[in-house]
Amino acid sequence: LGSGGFLQIRRMLNGLPPADAAHLIESTPHKIRSVLWQLIDIENEGDILQHLNDEVQSQFLRQMDAEEVAAITEGLETDDIADILQQLPDRVIREVLESMDHQDRLRVEHVLSFDEDTAGGLMNTDTITVRPNITLDVALRYLRRHESLPEMTDNLIVVNRNDQYIGILSLRKLLVSDPSVTVREIMDTEVEPISASMSSNEVAMLFARHDWVSAPVIGDDSLLLGRITIDDVVDVIREESDHSLMSMAGLDEDEDTFAAVLTTAPRRAIWLGINLLTAFIASGVINLFEATIEKVVALAVLMPIVASMGGVAGTQTLTVVIRGMALGHISRDNSRWLINREIMVGAINGLLWAVIVAGATTLWFGDPLMGAIIAAAMVINLITAALAGAALPLIMKSMKIDPALAGGVVLTTVTDVIGFMSFLGLATFFYA
Amino acid sequence: LGSGGFLQIRRMLNGLPPADAAHLIESTPHKIRSVLWQLIDIENEGDILQHLNDEVQSQFLRQMDAEEVAAITEGLETDDIADILQQLPDRVIREVLESMDHQDRLRVEHVLSFDEDTAGGLMNTDTITVRPNITLDVALRYLRRHESLPEMTDNLIVVNRNDQYIGILSLRKLLVSDPSVTVREIMDTEVEPISASMSSNEVAMLFARHDWVSAPVIGDDSLLLGRITIDDVVDVIREESDHSLMSMAGLDEDEDTFAAVLTTAPRRAIWLGINLLTAFIASGVINLFEATIEKVVALAVLMPIVASMGGVAGTQTLTVVIRGMALGHISRDNSRWLINREIMVGAINGLLWAVIVAGATTLWFGDPLMGAIIAAAMVINLITAALAGAALPLIMKSMKIDPALAGGVVLTTVTDVIGFMSFLGLATFFYA
Repeated sequence: LGSGGFLQIRRMLNGLPPADAAHLIESTPHKIRSVLWQLIDIENEGDILQHLNDEVQSQFLRQMDAEEVAAITEGLETDDIADILQQLPDRVIREVLESMDHQDRLRVEHVLSFDEDTAGGLMNTDTITVRPNITLDVALRYLRRHESLPEMTDNLIVVNRNDQYIGILSLRKLLVSDPSVTVREIMDTEVEPISASMSSNEVAMLFARHDWVSAPVIGDDSLLLGRITIDDVVDVIREESDHSLMSMAGLDEDEDTFAAVLTTAPRRAIWLGINLLTAFIASGVINLFEATIEKVVALAVLMPIVASMGGVAGTQTLTVVIRGMALGHISRDNSRWLINREIMVGAINGLLWAVIVAGATTLWFGDPLMGAIIAAAMVINLITAALAGAALPLIMKSMKIDPALAGGVVLTTVTDVIGFMSFLGLATFFYA
Repeated sequence: LGSGGFLQIRRMLNGLPPADAAHLIESTPHKIRSVLWQLIDIENEGDILQHLNDEVQSQFLRQMDAEEVAAITEGLETDDIADILQQLPDRVIREVLESMDHQDRLRVEHVLSFDEDTAGGLMNTDTITVRPNITLDVALRYLRRHESLPEMTDNLIVVNRNDQYIGILSLRKLLVSDPSVTVREIMDTEVEPISASMSSNEVAMLFARHDWVSAPVIGDDSLLLGRITIDDVVDVIREESDHSLMSMAGLDEDEDTFAAVLTTAPRRAIWLGINLLTAFIASGVINLFEATIEKVVALAVLMPIVASMGGVAGTQTLTVVIRGMALGHISRDNSRWLINREIMVGAINGLLWAVIVAGATTLWFGDPLMGAIIAAAMVINLITAALAGAALPLIMKSMKIDPALAGGVVLTTVTDVIGFMSFLGLATFFYA
């Protein structure tokens, strides 16, 4: 690549909307990524940085000192600055805060004081507030005194003189109403404000359910602290769904698709190690029946069928329950019904496929007893799989273990152990 | 439950915001669900229906005739009516359309003419348009003549006299600008309008990247057709992420958590049947080595380890690639890099765990040859798993097969076959 090529790429990168530039950088293997980052003009770095995922952000942040971080994040929204700072070690965060101007520093410190996964950590402090007793005409003139309104402003927030939340006035209503009426007459006091300590998942559910674009956040005593906007909620929703998908394969939802080999390999290794342990447990079970297998070697040929069908059936149940929990559909009231339903489904499908497997086995090995044994083992394992797939995530949740991460490993251990145990155990009983 | 209880539930259900009532109904087993639906007042049915997922919607729609459907959907947004109608058979759709008033019918027919998964299928037709040559003062007076503005109106759309898209004027800008300037002077013509034929996934990516609340949709010749709002895009994003999670377990993203046993069982049965077929293929491979297993029964004990580690490693790669494709990160340019990275990771982790498995096997069976054989098989299978996990989704995508649905089955067939083949094959070579 000649210097002419570099110039062209530089112009292209800096000309793109920041989000598109960030997407391009994320879609690039990690080595080329550092080169691209160096081609970005300093005044665009902050805007692009905020659109990168956590892992790529921290890759670039590691190469900057505190003053550089403070310089490039100047002018970003408070919550985006807080998100970026959270990638840094505590010591560096303090240094960055010290390099900021006083006003910004107070605002960022305020957002940083809340957990990243709460409404407080999601909120922006750039609210436009009005008092209930002014007329719309006054409100319109007040707005016109602003240079610009914050992004995603669809409401003005109505507060009293102590900055306590009273209600909201939507711009849509403001624009169609008679300018001589007061804010109090047309404001909406039905909208429940969000408490700063609410979890971000609950916030996402509220936004999705009520089709909000923005919503006010309050602290103790109804004090208005800021507002949450839909763009940040969309990120929460995406991360939440990604979390279930990625965790079930033992991956992190922030996993960088184009991370280096030496970053990726150790992370994956841990998960493989855990699974190796469970595979050895299953082998241990098989080993108990070594003598039977020696006598009837067809058992070794057929035994993976029972275990794998249990694994597949259990994973289906597990996925349905994990998704239902993420959507907030499953509670203590309906979980017993759900477990029963899954067991019934497991029993029906167990019987169905048991008949077919029994037929196929009898034809293959000319041994109806073998067919009967594999059929019985299949029914036992599919019912066990249904029970484990439905109950495990509920038990794990009550123990504060993430079922999306741990559920699959425990489940397949159960279905392997029960699958081998029932099939080889029955065979030992009838053949030994 | 006495009739007093019913009255109370009825009052509660009809008093809830429609989205909350819908959530409650979705969280209820299917039998109680029908009872709850009967307790809902007719004037609330449409609002609640539009918030239900497709499967529950069609459960209720099946019990209504065309006129009832037309009656309860009156007053809903055009795209929501179209979504509901798409659950019905074509004949009933025609009947419902005939019962609608002329204006509504034309609008719904227009949206129905687009595929559900395109921008045209997502859009609403309730746009507020202005001409570029009027002053903001005139625009403000024009707005005030409306009873109300459509939900999620954050922009006015600027069109010429032929209704062709020119640009947008954000309400935020309108409210802070001098009323005597013209729309042309402050409108934004940089925003690329969405083409009606764009896929809904691409629309979602644009919204997420540009933090839009609403965006104009155009047809041929830049003719303005409608607009898409973020609430519908949030649904697309959620469904898209759910799709990968659910498909990997052979489930539909619309799967109703509380469907009846007899609805659930047949759906799951198909997936189990497909997996049974692949399990028999794996058994067929084992059967080739029957004689070797008969001689060295420890092989039967150890063989699931190699197969299962391959399955786990391959699933990790598959998940990363499927997620990367969903996020639009993976293209032809970087897929070769990604496949190479995965093969390197597979080789490194294969070697790492091969050493440990070799040691454990040697200790367990006191047979270093067995340790060496299982180690070699492990390396072969983990590299195969990486190659298959990375390449399969890319190949499937180019063949228009959904990798989230089919990828896992094909992958585990490959890792089972190669796992058993390499381990038992090497063992036959050295022991037979």
